[in-house]
Amino acid sequence: MSELLHAAGRIRIVLVGTQHPGNIGSAARAIKTMGLQRLVLVAPERFPHADAVAMAAGAGDVLDAAPQAQTLAEAVADCRLVLGCTARSRRIALEELLPREAGARAVATAAQGTQVALVFGRERTGLDNDELQLCHAAVTIPADPAYSSLNLAAAVQVLCYELRLAMLGLQDLAPATGAGAAPAQAGDLPASHAELEGFFAQLGDTLDAIDFHKGRAPESAMRKLRRIFMRSRLDDRDVRLLRGVLADAQRMARLASGGHD
Amino acid sequence: MSELLHAAGRIRIVLVGTQHPGNIGSAARAIKTMGLQRLVLVAPERFPHADAVAMAAGAGDVLDAAPQAQTLAEAVADCRLVLGCTARSRRIALEELLPREAGARAVATAAQGTQVALVFGRERTGLDNDELQLCHAAVTIPADPAYSSLNLAAAVQVLCYELRLAMLGLQDLAPATGAGAAPAQAGDLPASHAELEGFFAQLGDTLDAIDFHKGRAPESAMRKLRRIFMRSRLDDRDVRLLRGVLADAQRMARLASGGHD
Repeated sequence: MSELLHAAGRIRIVLVGTQHPGNIGSAARAIKTMGLQRLVLVAPERFPHADAVAMAAGAGDVLDAAPQAQTLAEAVADCRLVLGCTARSRRIALEELLPREAGARAVATAAQGTQVALVFGRERTGLDNDELQLCHAAVTIPADPAYSSLNLAAAVQVLCYELRLAMLGLQDLAPATGAGAAPAQAGDLPASHAELEGFFAQLGDTLDAIDFHKGRAPESAMRKLRRIFMRSRLDDRDVRLLRGVLADAQRMARLASGGHD
Repeated sequence: MSELLHAAGRIRIVLVGTQHPGNIGSAARAIKTMGLQRLVLVAPERFPHADAVAMAAGAGDVLDAAPQAQTLAEAVADCRLVLGCTARSRRIALEELLPREAGARAVATAAQGTQVALVFGRERTGLDNDELQLCHAAVTIPADPAYSSLNLAAAVQVLCYELRLAMLGLQDLAPATGAGAAPAQAGDLPASHAELEGFFAQLGDTLDAIDFHKGRAPESAMRKLRRIFMRSRLDDRDVRLLRGVLADAQRMARLASGGHD
């Protein structure tokens, strides 16, 4: 259990493009009441702001310590698990988790010593597609489809609450947390953001080298391939193996085009 | 499950002596997003108020329909289960429930045709002792003892979220997010066994063609690659895409070895 509580230091709540500073303050309060500490702001529209301070109440220290990043990629660069909060209606090909599953997975991953991010988009429009591409899975609060518009701070509160239950080991008050909590392979670290991006860059180069696109725009295929591999939660060794395969395919392509081995 | 959803009509959220009208609006929004309908106000300090309307967003109908009562006793007169939300430190002689337990009990009771109330006290001072006497049990959100001051609207959101999970029958959910759980993408069929085996056979041929193994036994690499792709729960279209990539890599390998395109 103390191991689980230590996980708090490795879990960050990332708010992307927040419009209302009051929501940033409320998020800070939710974070602190639920025993978490780390808030990261990506390009907030208005911050610092008196409304943020007012809504943070006694959690001003969380606000003060919150770093700002220009992009989500920068904010999660060292994270090996990135979960993006989305409304259910999004047509995304990411694995969808309930908050409880997300809490279990986030805390189990952080307890292994790994950095984890829970990401919340803009009040009106949420996360854009490029930002969702950086996420390993989507988290959806099961709101009423007839009116699913949760306030941003309310969504942060629900997720922080589930993280708290997981940290306290209270999650499976009702039955167990099961498969979702487990890392893909015990003992191996999930690949970092940088490792994954290195792999995807090489995958893109390889598709070019083997003339996969044949004049079509490459974006669609790459997006689908990214999703396939993000879903499988690659660890360090998986990435090395896959990059080895790509390196040999690239070598063959060079030979085919008359280059040297 | 539809029985459980009908329970929503018998569950009321009661706010006692609320000081900030914005919290009343936020509570209305939390109620509606979580598929509930009924808000009852006991002696609010300022209501109606523009802040309440602003924070309710699309849940103005919940605000408009909210009856006002002079006392908590009046507000819960017809209820056979009254649960009072309190901070943990209260020295009360009531049974203490976690939000999950409270949600389960409230929904199970309402599903039997009984009126149920969840009661939230004042922002600063909570419920007084006379009000707690009207409650059958206390509900405590397990906040960090070092800073347990949840915003009122945040507390309402957490409880309404647990009510929603209970109404959806998702409370006891053992997250089945691992391999073999739900399909990764709604609308697409998980690939069949035969499709997967066809893909893996072609992957094996491709590794041979690009000379990936270099004399090592192929079994270990193939086993790891299978696991990676099994974890990502491929659908039909994923398999077609991946086989397209493999076909181009095989074509390059033939060219490299002097064959024809």
